[in-house]
Amino acid sequence: MTINLASIPPDGRHRYAIRVYYEDTDAGGVVYHATYLRYAERARTEALRDLGVPHADMVERFGVMFMVRQLEVDYERGARLDEALTVETEVLEVGGATMRLRQTVRNKDGVCAVLGVRLACVRVEGNKPGRIPAPWRERLTEMRSRRVEGGPGWRPTPSVVDVPG
Amino acid sequence: MTINLASIPPDGRHRYAIRVYYEDTDAGGVVYHATYLRYAERARTEALRDLGVPHADMVERFGVMFMVRQLEVDYERGARLDEALTVETEVLEVGGATMRLRQTVRNKDGVCAVLGVRLACVRVEGNKPGRIPAPWRERLTEMRSRRVEGGPGWRPTPSVVDVPG
Amino acid sequence: MTINLASIPPDGRHRYAIRVYYEDTDAGGVVYHATYLRYAERARTEALRDLGVPHADMVERFGVMFMVRQLEVDYERGARLDEALTVETEVLEVGGATMRLRQTVRNKDGVCAVLGVRLACVRVEGNKPGRIPAPWRERLTEMRSRRVEGGPGWRPTPSVVDVPG
Amino acid sequence: MTINLASIPPDGRHRYAIRVYYEDTDAGGVVYHATYLRYAERARTEALRDLGVPHADMVERFGVMFMVRQLEVDYERGARLDEALTVETEVLEVGGATMRLRQTVRNKDGVCAVLGVRLACVRVEGNKPGRIPAPWRERLTEMRSRRVEGGPGWRPTPSVVDVPG
Repeated sequence: MTINLASIPPDGRHRYAIRVYYEDTDAGGVVYHATYLRYAERARTEALRDLGVPHADMVERFGVMFMVRQLEVDYERGARLDEALTVETEVLEVGGATMRLRQTVRNKDGVCAVLGVRLACVRVEGNKPGRIPAPWRERLTEMRSRRVEGGPGWRPTPSVVDVPG
Repeated sequence: MTINLASIPPDGRHRYAIRVYYEDTDAGGVVYHATYLRYAERARTEALRDLGVPHADMVERFGVMFMVRQLEVDYERGARLDEALTVETEVLEVGGATMRLRQTVRNKDGVCAVLGVRLACVRVEGNKPGRIPAPWRERLTEMRSRRVEGGPGWRPTPSVVDVPG
Repeated sequence: MTINLASIPPDGRHRYAIRVYYEDTDAGGVVYHATYLRYAERARTEALRDLGVPHADMVERFGVMFMVRQLEVDYERGARLDEALTVETEVLEVGGATMRLRQTVRNKDGVCAVLGVRLACVRVEGNKPGRIPAPWRERLTEMRSRRVEGGPGWRPTPSVVDVPG
Repeated sequence: MTINLASIPPDGRHRYAIRVYYEDTDAGGVVYHATYLRYAERARTEALRDLGVPHADMVERFGVMFMVRQLEVDYERGARLDEALTVETEVLEVGGATMRLRQTVRNKDGVCAVLGVRLACVRVEGNKPGRIPAPWRERLTEMRSRRVEGGPGWRPTPSVVDVPG
């Protein structure tokens, strides 16, 4: 299996377009804060599909899937009804059984929300950790390496559980 | 206006019960990861109401409201359909215009998810930062101080935007 | 197995309390129209549990579950953030493999929405129709018979698919 | 203002594509029943936009908006994770202040759900009924007239509230 380099964004940044509907908003007049997680799920599912590694394939061929293990969200600007948004997805880190993404949601005025997402590869049966299958890891690593050098990064954060208060 | 100390949980931990319905789950058979944010919103709204500082009051009397500015979630264990969950809400920090909470969702087997939430007080008109009104700040501070000494804490995390990669 | 008559509402109307949170509303300032379906699901799940026939039991003991087959909703009045709502659930009809409910959502000013729901009993394996297990059917029939005579009813509606236009 | 006939689907049926993500499904392994209402909202918003009558325009230029007044849904077949769906939107009836649509959600195997939707035109201020602005009514009527003669139709159903039981 060879990697089709053409399918990987040249700058390592996958872009996905979203329109804001009533279902996404709340009585504050802006997009409900949990909606950005739904947007990010859609965008990273399509990013994987565009890489040639659809999630359904991972499940069928290798019996593994990605699950969200840790999330961070910075809310910068409230998106509004009917606005056109883009979600940019970048691979920050690829390990044996986990990966880290940064996903940035923007409207025409700038950044609305930035998500740091740690995904774990788990076996569908038994829910135990599993290795990211090689064809996936290669593509994700290539996408990772194409990110512009010196660009802003994202650092794993201390767990909200373990830090003494 | 005097603080009714009786209304503040003796150990500084507010508890809220939730049942898992189909609406909360996904095809993975467990609670969808964004659902925990909805659970946390319900729990902290009721925590504020039980403190005697309902959110609607803040809006009407002082023209300010709380908005989520930063979120962190650690996912530990998938909650399932029909399970009875509790959400524990603790005040970690109270500032002039922001506060930090930790919210822990548990099922009978242990911790499902831990959320660190930074809320900003903003003016309803104009969406500019506003000070947390004194009666609110006093109660929140009292609730903060009742948390068991030496218990686990939560530290503000570096922004996912600013850290160089 | 005998029916505990005490567990069935004397007037055949089960009542369930709900509070409106931001998650439930939209930018129109009222509860999003699809949210009433989530409210109704919670209320009828609790109505079944209170009857002594929790849904999880049906699945485990009989291998069947209820699925929504047809829905009608009349929207009367927009519920708002922070309002206390009640959902009243009535059994209108119990057949061998289906039942019909009416669920009425009210705020302090009156009716917000009325839902007519036809549920089918289906086998968990294979998704084929199954008979409603006897203990369930008896309780549901008793609840049906307690509804006040002459009260407003609900009639199956012509399918939106079959009627010539 | 003239109607651009080219923007109206030749057969009066607007088609909108949707992919199923985890956010849309439930623990039953299929699309959650309330999700179809969200899909339908997206599809009819885009149908209006494609007609050249974006909803935001109605609000800004005429101070009116569409609200859902009555809904019917027939559930035929459960859509699954990752499936590609289409939503077909047809105008069945256009009145002075209301219109009726039928929206059909299909996967590759056939119909998943059919929705009958009655929308009312209401004033943004005061929430009172308002007339559908002429440019909108003309386009909607043209779209209505293009539906294939003899095709399946949809009949207003008796209200779930008024019918004696």
